[in-house]
Amino acid sequence: MQTFYYSPGACSLAPHIVLEEVGATYQRQIVKAGTDTQTDSWRAINPKGRVPALSGVTGSSGGMGDLLTEANAIMIYLARSYPEAGLIPSEPAREARMIEWLNYLATGVHSSIYGSIRRTGRFVDNPDLFPPIQDKGRRSLRDAFAYIEGLLGDGRDWAVPGSYTLADPYLLVFYYFGYGAGFDSKVDYPNWRKHTEKLMARPAVQRVIAIEGLNLP
Amino acid sequence: MQTFYYSPGACSLAPHIVLEEVGATYQRQIVKAGTDTQTDSWRAINPKGRVPALSGVTGSSGGMGDLLTEANAIMIYLARSYPEAGLIPSEPAREARMIEWLNYLATGVHSSIYGSIRRTGRFVDNPDLFPPIQDKGRRSLRDAFAYIEGLLGDGRDWAVPGSYTLADPYLLVFYYFGYGAGFDSKVDYPNWRKHTEKLMARPAVQRVIAIEGLNLP
Repeated sequence: MQTFYYSPGACSLAPHIVLEEVGATYQRQIVKAGTDTQTDSWRAINPKGRVPALSGVTGSSGGMGDLLTEANAIMIYLARSYPEAGLIPSEPAREARMIEWLNYLATGVHSSIYGSIRRTGRFVDNPDLFPPIQDKGRRSLRDAFAYIEGLLGDGRDWAVPGSYTLADPYLLVFYYFGYGAGFDSKVDYPNWRKHTEKLMARPAVQRVIAIEGLNLP
Repeated sequence: MQTFYYSPGACSLAPHIVLEEVGATYQRQIVKAGTDTQTDSWRAINPKGRVPALSGVTGSSGGMGDLLTEANAIMIYLARSYPEAGLIPSEPAREARMIEWLNYLATGVHSSIYGSIRRTGRFVDNPDLFPPIQDKGRRSLRDAFAYIEGLLGDGRDWAVPGSYTLADPYLLVFYYFGYGAGFDSKVDYPNWRKHTEKLMARPAVQRVIAIEGLNLP
């Protein structure tokens, strides 16, 4: 049986939703981001010291046995393994738009901006220097959220127009992160709120929100 | 005709190589990272203010007309559009390992670490605070490079064992970035150097290195 390692409310939320969307059989194990992830016991499993991770991915090794890391890699692996779920567009241009979303959110929003706000110690050792970095991060996050809000406000049904794809549950991660950065996502980003409401109507999303115990205002 | 917007020696190097690998017909336009990318004229084309970008991607819009952004999205679009080049593994586990590389390098190495060294102004406004951030970035980059060197030293032929994929030209970007961070990649990372030498034997790689005018010691 595959084990999904996750931290409630972290970016593991998106592959967690995908596991439910495709109907995978798996067990869950919580590895809390920022604390459990930094232990020797977790680093013995995943040298990157991060979550999410999925065990039991056989057929190719990434140097950590059968453990697959990186939220986007886990989502794409699941979507390919369960093609009937239709979570990756078959047309090259539409697949590329999905990857454009995934990559932008992972790099331009999560690892650089949100990381500098919530994991400031990755960027500088001296805690006295955290406040100006976090302040810059919050301003950059506002810019990124305004950009996302604009894209979602052009009349499209889902992030990649035409169908529900992996980009949609991944967007929910960042909507939730907005609260972690002190934003009131529901009020400040009405187009994104509508997107979130559509997501919340999906049973797979409802199950994962309940399992992770998240409060999405 | 599609236009490829790139900056010599930036991460656009990888999709540039892929354009040559698949034999695409395209024209090139230089948009220098950090200077040209910050102009109003470029932001009118790409509001993200970044390169690479590829025009003429029809069939789905990301909100910027037919412009596709994000290095990984461009590479995947090209590989899907020219399946005969075989740059994406067909097995889900091997495709996922490729995405694991692409996502790790884009997030855990480029946007957070290398970005904090070379684009420190994205993380804090006050230039007096740049040195401790850059120092931390160089140490984190050493850790990341040691991790990559270990993976490449386990006897594998290419980044995803079994075939040349998009992860391979993308790795070349970071080998080259090592020099930009003050490392001597060739001496310090012998397994990675061997990987680079295999890449440099490919005509598509040789052409792009020449076109971009890069000096790869």
